[in-house]
Amino acid sequence: MLLEKLNWRYATKKMDASKTVAADKVDRIVEAARLAPTSSGLQPFQVIVVTNPEVRAKLRAAAYDQAQLTDGSAVLVFAAWDNYTAERIDQMLALTVAERGASSDTLSAYYERLKATYVPRDAQTNFEHAARQAYIGFGMSIAQAAFEGVDATPMEGFDPAQFDEILGLSGQGLRSVCILPLGYRAEEGDWLLGLKKIRRPTENFVTELA
Amino acid sequence: MLLEKLNWRYATKKMDASKTVAADKVDRIVEAARLAPTSSGLQPFQVIVVTNPEVRAKLRAAAYDQAQLTDGSAVLVFAAWDNYTAERIDQMLALTVAERGASSDTLSAYYERLKATYVPRDAQTNFEHAARQAYIGFGMSIAQAAFEGVDATPMEGFDPAQFDEILGLSGQGLRSVCILPLGYRAEEGDWLLGLKKIRRPTENFVTELA
Repeated sequence: MLLEKLNWRYATKKMDASKTVAADKVDRIVEAARLAPTSSGLQPFQVIVVTNPEVRAKLRAAAYDQAQLTDGSAVLVFAAWDNYTAERIDQMLALTVAERGASSDTLSAYYERLKATYVPRDAQTNFEHAARQAYIGFGMSIAQAAFEGVDATPMEGFDPAQFDEILGLSGQGLRSVCILPLGYRAEEGDWLLGLKKIRRPTENFVTELA
Repeated sequence: MLLEKLNWRYATKKMDASKTVAADKVDRIVEAARLAPTSSGLQPFQVIVVTNPEVRAKLRAAAYDQAQLTDGSAVLVFAAWDNYTAERIDQMLALTVAERGASSDTLSAYYERLKATYVPRDAQTNFEHAARQAYIGFGMSIAQAAFEGVDATPMEGFDPAQFDEILGLSGQGLRSVCILPLGYRAEEGDWLLGLKKIRRPTENFVTELA
């Protein structure tokens, strides 16, 4: 079922500006990212859902003028934590205790180990680690969009510093890493629509050690 | 449908060593990674499927002795390109021309731009970029495992240098970044089984700019 959806989807180049993705669909596409697994369950990223047309026009200008940002009806911006901090890790411990209803020495020791690993490490290494986790969520949102019959364009072609500025992310300790405009493919004008999906053949992509 | 599956899955801590994941299921779990979108379609990673018990025993020793590597029946190792090279990029151009049946100036120019961007850039930056793409595929395999009713444990807790050595990856220009043991949950002995999944609430995880 997922494989069919992955074969259906493609990086939509031209979206129909007259169509809007329903809010419940957008919500479920974001929910897939929220449910994605991440290292030690820290979920070190945020999803910014931009539907506001003026903001999307600014983002488009900071994304090489790619039209999907305004022809689609929403843009998801995946922004990774710029660093792991004791406060952020402690917040996830507090949430875990609150949700599961019990603290324990084992749990506390686990989070102490996380802090001992992450907090002294340089910010760039931590950011790169957080960015990788964001990409798991990015993938889940791409997959869920396909299940919703919604077209999406996974993109790295934008200026992260400008995005961070437009969205006020730096002040929140976030750095944009990838974006996902959502919309519906246009009937005409998409050069990629209908072209065969290119993937390395399995025998080249996979190594088996049996 | 995907959301249900993401709610079903969990990072399995104890697998039933008597059970084997059928080969066709493993194949489809890998296929999801192969179909995953990647930056410019370069698919800058390899999936190594290890079923061999002796090799998995060695990997387990290099993964803090985590039992899922041998109690499961297969381990997927996601290994990112250690660098982008002109040769690797040209291979994808050649594949695209072969599959779509036509070369063009536009296509050639696109790949020339890719080479101009990636090849002069330092290897570590390129590797980090490739690793992010591998995590999209990693996420797709995690999702497909859930669709197959197969348990999986997304892991970063291993020594990449030792893995690269055991699997002979360095000689292929690859660096292991994350692994996915596959198997079936044990009836007893999994402390995480049955515990509530912890995720940041939507109002905390998502920012809306409407």
